Amino acid sequence: MPLPVPVLSEGVDPAWLPPAAFRALGSRRTLIRGSGPLVETVRSEVADACGRFGGRIVRDTEPHDLMLELTGDPLGDDEEFVFGREDGRTTVLASGQHGLLHGLFHVVRLGEDAFRGDRRREVHRPALALRMVDHWDNVAVHPVMGQVERGYAGGSLFWEDGRARGELERVRAYGRLLAACGINAVAVNNVNVHETEAHLLTDRIGDVAAIADALRPYGIRTHLSVTFAAPVVLGGLPTADPLDESVREWWARAVRDVYGAIGDFGGFVVKADSEGQPGPFTYGRSHADGANMLAAALAPHGGTVHWRAFVYNHTQDWRDRSTDRARAAYEHFAPLDGEFAANAVLQVKHGPMDFQVREPVSPVLGAMPRTRLAVEVQATQEYTGQQRHVCWLGPMWSEALRFRPEGDGGPEVGELADGLVAVSNVGDDPFWTGHPLAQANLYTFGRLAWQPAADPHRVLDEWIGLTFGPAQEHLAAGLRTVLSGSWRTYEKYTAPLGVGFMVQPGHHYGPSVDGYEYSPWGTYHFADRDGIGVDRGAATGTGYAAQYGKPWAEVYESPDTCPDELLLFFHHVPYGHVLHSGKTVIQHIYDTHFEGVAEVEEARRVWAGLADLMDPARHARVAERYEEQLRGAREWRDQINSYFLRKSGIPDRHGRRIYL
Amino acid sequence: MPLPVPVLSEGVDPAWLPPAAFRALGSRRTLIRGSGPLVETVRSEVADACGRFGGRIVRDTEPHDLMLELTGDPLGDDEEFVFGREDGRTTVLASGQHGLLHGLFHVVRLGEDAFRGDRRREVHRPALALRMVDHWDNVAVHPVMGQVERGYAGGSLFWEDGRARGELERVRAYGRLLAACGINAVAVNNVNVHETEAHLLTDRIGDVAAIADALRPYGIRTHLSVTFAAPVVLGGLPTADPLDESVREWWARAVRDVYGAIGDFGGFVVKADSEGQPGPFTYGRSHADGANMLAAALAPHGGTVHWRAFVYNHTQDWRDRSTDRARAAYEHFAPLDGEFAANAVLQVKHGPMDFQVREPVSPVLGAMPRTRLAVEVQATQEYTGQQRHVCWLGPMWSEALRFRPEGDGGPEVGELADGLVAVSNVGDDPFWTGHPLAQANLYTFGRLAWQPAADPHRVLDEWIGLTFGPAQEHLAAGLRTVLSGSWRTYEKYTAPLGVGFMVQPGHHYGPSVDGYEYSPWGTYHFADRDGIGVDRGAATGTGYAAQYGKPWAEVYESPDTCPDELLLFFHHVPYGHVLHSGKTVIQHIYDTHFEGVAEVEEARRVWAGLADLMDPARHARVAERYEEQLRGAREWRDQINSYFLRKSGIPDRHGRRIYL
Repeated sequence: MPLPVPVLSEGVDPAWLPPAAFRALGSRRTLIRGSGPLVETVRSEVADACGRFGGRIVRDTEPHDLMLELTGDPLGDDEEFVFGREDGRTTVLASGQHGLLHGLFHVVRLGEDAFRGDRRREVHRPALALRMVDHWDNVAVHPVMGQVERGYAGGSLFWEDGRARGELERVRAYGRLLAACGINAVAVNNVNVHETEAHLLTDRIGDVAAIADALRPYGIRTHLSVTFAAPVVLGGLPTADPLDESVREWWARAVRDVYGAIGDFGGFVVKADSEGQPGPFTYGRSHADGANMLAAALAPHGGTVHWRAFVYNHTQDWRDRSTDRARAAYEHFAPLDGEFAANAVLQVKHGPMDFQVREPVSPVLGAMPRTRLAVEVQATQEYTGQQRHVCWLGPMWSEALRFRPEGDGGPEVGELADGLVAVSNVGDDPFWTGHPLAQANLYTFGRLAWQPAADPHRVLDEWIGLTFGPAQEHLAAGLRTVLSGSWRTYEKYTAPLGVGFMVQPGHHYGPSVDGYEYSPWGTYHFADRDGIGVDRGAATGTGYAAQYGKPWAEVYESPDTCPDELLLFFHHVPYGHVLHSGKTVIQHIYDTHFEGVAEVEEARRVWAGLADLMDPARHARVAERYEEQLRGAREWRDQINSYFLRKSGIPDRHGRRIYL
Repeated sequence: MPLPVPVLSEGVDPAWLPPAAFRALGSRRTLIRGSGPLVETVRSEVADACGRFGGRIVRDTEPHDLMLELTGDPLGDDEEFVFGREDGRTTVLASGQHGLLHGLFHVVRLGEDAFRGDRRREVHRPALALRMVDHWDNVAVHPVMGQVERGYAGGSLFWEDGRARGELERVRAYGRLLAACGINAVAVNNVNVHETEAHLLTDRIGDVAAIADALRPYGIRTHLSVTFAAPVVLGGLPTADPLDESVREWWARAVRDVYGAIGDFGGFVVKADSEGQPGPFTYGRSHADGANMLAAALAPHGGTVHWRAFVYNHTQDWRDRSTDRARAAYEHFAPLDGEFAANAVLQVKHGPMDFQVREPVSPVLGAMPRTRLAVEVQATQEYTGQQRHVCWLGPMWSEALRFRPEGDGGPEVGELADGLVAVSNVGDDPFWTGHPLAQANLYTFGRLAWQPAADPHRVLDEWIGLTFGPAQEHLAAGLRTVLSGSWRTYEKYTAPLGVGFMVQPGHHYGPSVDGYEYSPWGTYHFADRDGIGVDRGAATGTGYAAQYGKPWAEVYESPDTCPDELLLFFHHVPYGHVLHSGKTVIQHIYDTHFEGVAEVEEARRVWAGLADLMDPARHARVAERYEEQLRGAREWRDQINSYFLRKSGIPDRHGRRIYL
């Protein structure tokens, strides 16, 4: 008996799956062939759509407009499907059930286009097998970080105040949204595993199983963040040494029990030896030893360990200018290339630091050809406006995924990687993501994970069409205006030229130019009265630039060839240094900050003009956040400009108001 | 039946009342005349001391070494006592019971000196009638501020996790310590009155009464911080307008009920229209209206309202250089002089800002001759090292109390005021104050409240003698070395020349030069590449200097006459400005920061040499904190010096290491 399509509670936004998105499908005659749980999900979706729009599910013997067929080909890729249209009939063929579900949502995305003209058979398969959303959700409310660490969308969908939330219908609806953009995995708890959360692995695995049961019908596999110290804190062993036989046995038993509860459990996410989390260094072991020990426990059951490469010294001395946090991941992991097990995936942040608005692509991604890699991006907007500012990150992620570590002719990051992972931006907020327009980030992530080379602006159009309906061209144009350039707008009014971390310590919202300047976190800009930036060249700096292969090591080495937008990441230059743009650094700072605010003002104006074209609640929520964004952008502009005017003494050449 | 002397739990430090402090008294024959509850306390104290040291309480007919006599003179000051010695007999005469208790502790402080030679009759009476400790203790743990706001000595003595703590023997012991240094009032809860705490006034008054019962035998009157909005939040009235008859009646009833529970209740402490607390401004009323309404409710019962003058705009725009937080208290309150009721006391912070390590004396203190004033100081070391750094504040408080607002020949602040109030530095820590040496601050506060003109260094000696015993000259010399200059040492390595607020936002521990520079709190230094400081002169600045009478308005107006230590508080000057000391501002910054660290190193060395001269636990606690103080001092030195070298570009003339 298939479950019906999940029903949203009153007031919860349907995001990119409003009923209208199913109009084309729901008004057709559809033939569904095959059986199995995901085929049942497909059947429910089609039946639900037909119930709304007058179509129906037909039998083999009847004529049809659409056929969705599970071929059961044992050699096929389970996620692949073939789409085509001939003689007035649209066909989706899939060898596996996951492929059939993907094919269904492909038809939904195409809308009426799925039923027009003829189409040659197209094979669709995901470029990346691992397409995961990591929730930094805590089970127990953390005294500092709250229910969701770096969460800006209310509480957690999964947990509340130490307990499982139990709203499984909402979790099912969430799984459906994820499936519709191509995501196939979820990690249900924070990578910082605190005391309560550690127990999800053992005595509270039932809570996880309930979530897994809710997500499974949409093809989502559930993962768990675990603490490396679990054998000690849960098992009472004297050690968590990954080479200790009793430790390995403990993990093997624990994993066996997990699979007893969740037969298709996806695996673990591990933050080890990072920002205070325990790890193999405690026992003098390498991160390959640590990851492989967990991989060995998971392998018999088909699970994967996602081992995070975010390892660095977070108690650095700011006086020490030889240590460079940017170098840390490469130094820790590149030497281990080839040592990781086949079911271990190294999860690498897209940049070398920590999700700043502008970073170079991590050199780790080009340095580990014999290691399975997943690129980690941050959908939750920790450093990009915390879902109070519009900041559509599609172009940023696309730039990282299309970066060619070996230069022109070499492969793109999206081709080198096995997976793409996003830190979730979702919570129990009625709009899922706090800021309604932040839904576009989650959707874009899913689609880029499926096809990293996709044009993000095409994905944005797809999201607009699904969410707001295909026929609203004026509305679509307005949405494109406010979203497509929003990342660059945000970059303009915040930290300039790749320098990063000019944020309020702790919560990371709003400007504080020196907020992380004398901190232990390895986050410095070294601004003085003469200039600013970090010399990361090999000749005179920290040597970070040399972690890249050719041509990038050379490009980044010199301020003459380094791209403007990364100049201060790689070089310390005088305020009068002339950029490729022809502007000085100081004038660039002033100009971009005035421009950024003007762009927010313009976006707010455009948004106001869209009021009659959508649900008033959604419009009002965004309008209200634009007020805060504008206030915030002005604060950024004025603090940054004042700071640099005070420091450099160089006036704005256009004589605009900068506060002294 | 008198209560016995309070017994401290195992491990709790006796502070300045160790058994040995009672040796001289306890080895004598003492005659006690009079009756009443405080006389019973005196009797218990003497009996307890005699039990330890072999003396005894004698009858009228027997010979005695000491007589403590309550004369019952109805015209005398209840707190006054007369001390003398003649013919081998020491005499304390008091017309009131409080005086007799004070006289007893005077004998204790004198030790053997109380029983040597002859002494002319000396009349002792407190210069200030109101000598209060304000606890910023929360009943319920505040999510940000914790159990004790700005508390650095563990939890609260009174409250724990939403409930009365119920350790009344410890509260009794606390009252005894307070009485022994002359304090006569305690406010038991935070001036920021949150939801739970509001109820202390009404349905939870029993919790307060229990504390009052424990403190009463030592002559301490209990006070309560109340919210101005109480008629609304507790009484369900639609308004808290102080001129509304129903509001006045509500307060009258509430106060009557309070006195029903606590017959000698001291009164209220009120933070109104300040940092988010409600107040009379909501209703278009003045602070005199607000204070007088509460005074009227308290007057029939003999209570007093302590109305805090800490009112300013805490949502200031840093871009606005015309608003000056330093001016706020004067602007709000000076025009109200003469309008406050006789039982209303305006409680004024000693400086115009907020307990920085160096501030000028508040101009309010010289501007309200027709108002009862209490000077508020901060024993809890919010901005002075948080009881991890040694910072004996006696000299700072003494400077404020001995300041003459009208210049030479005019009265001192200590003569203009009716009271001295300290924000408590006490918690449930075994040493009471976290840092054992911070006990000296509480003791010094009490003695200066009794006699504001006292030499604080004499008070320090008194504290050393009581706490460590009189005969340990080497130890006493060491303690004097590490304590007497510790405030100036702390000033040296932190914010220079009166500029203030270069602290980490939020918790206020450790340096952040720009931490409050672009904040809404009105706390700026305006450092740029050329100079630093706030122009508060009348001619070109904010006009704050003109709030002083002569001669200070003129002294502060010009950088030529402004004292060095306040230069940056009153003036914005170039880094090359030459101080009266002959040094430039920038060189002064470098020099003091190197000196400050050297002085901490020396103090740590001196402390290490005292190891064998005291209880090992006490020595170890201080030694451990010296490690943190030294780490902190070095961090301050390096951040401040680096900041100003980066900004000014002017090298240290002595070529010492400053990090770039």
